[in-house]
Amino acid sequence: MRKMTEQQWRAFVNYGTRTGKLSTSRADGSPHVTPVWFLLDGDDIVFTTEKTGVKGRNLARDGRFALCVDEDRPPYAFVLLQARAAISEEPEGMRRWGGLLGARYMGDDRTEEYAARNGGPGNLLVRGRIDKVVAFAGIAD
Amino acid sequence: MRKMTEQQWRAFVNYGTRTGKLSTSRADGSPHVTPVWFLLDGDDIVFTTEKTGVKGRNLARDGRFALCVDEDRPPYAFVLLQARAAISEEPEGMRRWGGLLGARYMGDDRTEEYAARNGGPGNLLVRGRIDKVVAFAGIAD
Repeated sequence: MRKMTEQQWRAFVNYGTRTGKLSTSRADGSPHVTPVWFLLDGDDIVFTTEKTGVKGRNLARDGRFALCVDEDRPPYAFVLLQARAAISEEPEGMRRWGGLLGARYMGDDRTEEYAARNGGPGNLLVRGRIDKVVAFAGIAD
Repeated sequence: MRKMTEQQWRAFVNYGTRTGKLSTSRADGSPHVTPVWFLLDGDDIVFTTEKTGVKGRNLARDGRFALCVDEDRPPYAFVLLQARAAISEEPEGMRRWGGLLGARYMGDDRTEEYAARNGGPGNLLVRGRIDKVVAFAGIAD
């Protein structure tokens, strides 16, 4: 098991269509975790989510979140990013990031479609500055 | 996007070496999420973890956890299982499940090695009865 360098963990989380497993806390303190499409923007994690969904409501109440990206084949590897969310509904930013996220996860030719779909009304743009990173490769070595 | 049947979500989480992204709450209420090797035993989720690790300490304080298993390629799919942990250090059970987990994730020929490694002293055997399931396939369809 070896710690990844910053260059390594950035390449790892940006690879292909790897999703981030987003962990947030419910009002009663219980944990919730589901996948999100995300991008890194410098030291920020950026994603969109539905305003009235569990993730959106949890983050509006408590912005602290953790995001896990992993490789689920031997020798296994994972990255854990911790951050605090700033939430926006600014239409231009939402459209732009909705499109970029659609491009990463569905292909460049779907940018416009996802700009409208994930960047439209009823969604939130979430941006979280990374304040802690745990990243290990070769876990079963 | 379509809801999975019980048969479908059980097959999905049991498939190959898919890991579970285990979400727990820290003492300060912030969420934590990292991958675990797990198995289903009827309606229970079973895994081992280090006694002094973040996951082990969090679960000893608050047994509520959420586990996410996903497919990170189009059209995308995920299962979220919620449960409450019962923790044991009973040596025979720990060895048995440590071995079964090693077999699933590293191959049958590694059973004995992992029975000792993950089922030995310093680890906890965690068993959580599933009390909520959210399971969707074809998310981007």
